[in-house]
Order: sequence, then C-alpha cells, then structure tokens
Amino acid sequence: MEMFTYEKALEQVKQEINQALTRSPRMIREYLTHLTLSQGKMIRAVSVLTAALDQDGYCSYEAIRVAAAIEIIHLSSLVHDDIIDNADLRRGHETLQKKYGKRTAVICGDYLLSLALKMITNLEHKNKYLEIQIPDYISKLCLGELNQHINNHNLDLSMFDYIKIIGGKTAALFEASFFAGAVITGESQKNCKKYAKIGYYIGMIFQLMDDCMDFETTVETMKKPVQSDYEQGVITLPLIYTFFQKPEFARKAKVEGISRNEINQAVEDAKGLGYTRSIVTRYYKKAEKLIQSLSLIAEKEDKMLSILNKSARMIA
Amino acid sequence: MEMFTYEKALEQVKQEINQALTRSPRMIREYLTHLTLSQGKMIRAVSVLTAALDQDGYCSYEAIRVAAAIEIIHLSSLVHDDIIDNADLRRGHETLQKKYGKRTAVICGDYLLSLALKMITNLEHKNKYLEIQIPDYISKLCLGELNQHINNHNLDLSMFDYIKIIGGKTAALFEASFFAGAVITGESQKNCKKYAKIGYYIGMIFQLMDDCMDFETTVETMKKPVQSDYEQGVITLPLIYTFFQKPEFARKAKVEGISRNEINQAVEDAKGLGYTRSIVTRYYKKAEKLIQSLSLIAEKEDKMLSILNKSARMIA
Repeated sequence: MEMFTYEKALEQVKQEINQALTRSPRMIREYLTHLTLSQGKMIRAVSVLTAALDQDGYCSYEAIRVAAAIEIIHLSSLVHDDIIDNADLRRGHETLQKKYGKRTAVICGDYLLSLALKMITNLEHKNKYLEIQIPDYISKLCLGELNQHINNHNLDLSMFDYIKIIGGKTAALFEASFFAGAVITGESQKNCKKYAKIGYYIGMIFQLMDDCMDFETTVETMKKPVQSDYEQGVITLPLIYTFFQKPEFARKAKVEGISRNEINQAVEDAKGLGYTRSIVTRYYKKAEKLIQSLSLIAEKEDKMLSILNKSARMIA
Repeated sequence: MEMFTYEKALEQVKQEINQALTRSPRMIREYLTHLTLSQGKMIRAVSVLTAALDQDGYCSYEAIRVAAAIEIIHLSSLVHDDIIDNADLRRGHETLQKKYGKRTAVICGDYLLSLALKMITNLEHKNKYLEIQIPDYISKLCLGELNQHINNHNLDLSMFDYIKIIGGKTAALFEASFFAGAVITGESQKNCKKYAKIGYYIGMIFQLMDDCMDFETTVETMKKPVQSDYEQGVITLPLIYTFFQKPEFARKAKVEGISRNEINQAVEDAKGLGYTRSIVTRYYKKAEKLIQSLSLIAEKEDKMLSILNKSARMIA
C-alpha cells in the first residue's frame, strides 16, 4: 500500500477535490468549478490527515479520499447555507445561489453530498466507511443548522442552547474529521473516541473564536463584514452573556432595538469577549490534555497542537 | 432471522417511515410529521420488497429498512423539488416550503437524506449497503433534476436528452429499488443487473405515462392541475414529438407563444400521446421479458408484473 507524507497527502487532497469537481458531468461542471474559487484553508482535511498519521508519520490514500470527501461535505453545507442566509458573497467570491439562482444551488448542494458519499463508499477497505458513520455527522450538522435557523432573532437564546447549536453546526464535522482519521489509521475504539472528542473541542473553539472576531472586526473595522452576526439575526455567545449580565439591555433590544455601536459598547462593558475566551480556554485545556494522553510521535503531536492553536487563532 | 410476508413487510415499512420521521429530534419533528400527510402509494418501497422476496415468498427485515430508506430519499427529493418548482401543493397538501419557508425546507431535505443513509448504513449485514450503491443513485437523481431545470422552457429539447433527463429524475430510484431488493435477497450479480434494468424500465414507463396524463387530464378536465407541465416550462415527450412532426408549430411556440388549447390540439393531430405510448410499449416488453427470464416463483412473478402494469396504468 502506497503511503504519503503529510505534505504530499495534503497536495493530493486538493487534487482529489478539484478532480471530483471538474470531472463531474459537463452540465454541472460549470457550477462546481465556480466553487473551487472560494476554497479556504481546508482545516477539516488537515484534521483528517493529521489524525491519520501512523507511527512513521505517513498516511494512506484512504485518508486522502476521506479528507477530500469531508471537505466536499463542508462545501455542500456552505452552498445550502448561502441559500438559507441569502448570501451574495463568500470569501470575496460570488456565491452559487447569487450567481446561478437558488434552484441550481439546492441541486448542486445535493449533488456534492452524494459525490462525497460516493468517494467514501468507494474506499478500498469498505468497512472503514461504515465505522466512520458519516451520515450520523451529516444529521448532526443539519440539526445544528436548523436549530440556528429556528433561533434566528431569538434574543432569549440560552448559553446551553447556543452550545448545542454550534456543537452541530460547526463541531460535528471537526469531530467527524478527527474520528475518521483515527479509524482509518486503525486506532483502538477507545482512542478513536478520544480523537472524536478532540475534534469536537477544536470545532467549538473554532466557532467561538469566529463569534468573537465578528465583534472585533466590527470594532477595529479592519475587515468590514457586510452584515454582523446580529444584523443577520444570529445571536452568539458574547452577546448572550452580555444580555445575561445586563437584563435591561436585553429588554431594550426587544423593545426599542439596539444599534451596532450600542451592542459593541455593551459587549465591552460586560466583558462578553473575555467570557467567551474563558470558555475557549476551557475547551483548549481539555483538548490539549487529550492530545497529550495519546502518546503520539513528536511530529503528530505537534501537528495536532498546531491545529488546536490555529482554531484558537494563537498562530496565523 | 425473522422473515416477513409481503403484506406484513409493507405494513412494517409504513411504521419504519413514521417512526423515523416522528422520533426525530423535537425541533425537526413538526416539519417531518407534516410530510406524513402527503404520503403516496409507496411504489418504490413496494418495488424493494417485491424484488427481495425469497423462494418461499418472504422478505427480511433488511429489505424493510432499505424500502423505508428509499421512500425517505424520495421524500427528501420531493421536498427539494418543491423548493425548485416553488410549489404550494403536493397531493392536495400544503408543501413544506410553502408552509415553513424555503430555508427550513432546504435543511429538512438534507436531514431526510442523512436519515435515510443512516437507516441503510445501520443494516445488520453492513456490506450489503456498499453493494447497493445508494450514493450513486442519488447522484443520478440530482443530475436528472439539474438537467431538467437547465432545460426548463427549452423548446429545442431533443427526445434523446429528454430520455436522459427522466432516466435520472425518475428511473434512477426505481432502478435502485429493484437492484437493492435483489442484492438483499442474495441474487447473483448477473441477476441483480437484470433487476436493475427492470427497475429502470418501470421508472421510465411510470414517468412517460405521467407525461401523457398531464395532457389527458387537461383535455378531459377530470382533475384540473393548477399548471400543466408546459406552463411550468417542462417540455415532455408528447410535445417534443409534436414539435418534431410540426416544425411550424415549434416556430410559433418560439415566436408568438402557444396556448393550452393549441398545444392539446397539436399533440392530438401529431399523435404525440400515441407515439409516447409506443415508447412505453417498447419498455414494457423489455421489462416483461426480463421478468420472465428470472424463473421466479408464481407469487413473485405476479407481483413484479403487477408493478409493471401499475406503472403503465394498466390496473388501478
């Protein structure tokens, strides 16, 4: 069985994704090719590959396929997200739903999902696919999305419910990524569960830091987002905590409405970002401890910690 | 292993579907329960169960699960279809997208798909799942939908392209149903391919007869559809053939537009329905021959022929 260094594997993932998108039937190719424009840092693929590294620091072609498939599942969820959010831009590029219409975007998202599932079910060791339980994670992802949608503009959203939402919306696919990597490389069931938990924590950190950034970029006006989370009806932890600390501000939000400046001031006064970061720290320490408990080779441990640090925006 | 008579199995499929829908997490249950209202005759589930009957006329619990899952995949595609078609009603009931909005419907369709995949991947004999290749069929379904959407209002659509569209849009899931049933009951690879072909032919017949009915119900004004296929931009075989026979009528359609009455008259003059039925007959004979070549027990052969006849609307 051919084995790949991490760097070569990551390169191969990019190729697999591009091939899957550009070798699709002609009629759908144009739409899918458009998506390759707005590809990000592939942190989910990086997670699969890292979790799949063996004792010599190599990973198998199966890990590459699964990494590509999970990125495509992520892509599929973004395509449907953009319909739900009526978004025009993603990472500076026109969204599929804006460019080709919602109808085409619904089908393209469905097609991408089936494409990813096809890639995984065609693994050489087919049984691995069943252990990875991708459909379970897709369900969790959907339920997270739905839960967020239902709670759009809900100013009474509790911290508990919020944690549940992002646990599905964001953390589920990170969990799937680490879990899949561990299953592929043949880790024990006990260890696979540890990897899954690490993935969950990293996903939570990733989302909570994103939530903080939404306030920071507004304050610093470094990158001016078209609409803040709040303006889109998405109530995140820094503001939930602020409402909890300042019930009179929550009442004002319901009765009179609150401006972007008022929100930023209130979040600052209530230390909403500090509180959110303290939750991040809690997840960070749990993840760190779990990673260290796995007795990994130095390269793998470093890479796992590096993903953790990236999710916490501690390194670029 | 507990085995079920056909009747008991079909009853069980209904229960499995209802359980899957109503035992989903609370937040999505309301939407899914709404769907149980507009359940049809479950011809896909009937196909799976029939194809899965063994030499004694029994089928396994696995066949029941797969039958329920394929019906749920069909349901998922209907939910997304209704978004694409902006449909208000389906089988007399308000659609999900009309009642709860397109956003909710996008997510519910995704969730249903993941639910169906979960049901199949949890089969006792997991390897069966991989043989059934459900993701391949979902891809075909998506491509058929997309192809139809791209060719909406395309008056130059060729017969060849039309056959390709309905081969994905409708026939793919019928093919999957018969193929899955045969795989589950342990048929040889050669026979499984025969079952798949039978399913494909039946799906084609089902759709072509539906296309004919769209004209007939208009003419007879028995059930008046809100909008005919043509008014929705869907060009079907009877009209494609009519355009082919009457190029001047095709030109008129492009330049001046054509009314419902003119279409019906032209289709009648050109014998568009007769031509479509001749194609149906061709598929019918192929399917009949294949069914007879399988040397089935009388009960199973009768049931297979009965599905074929139902698809051709030869029996109620």
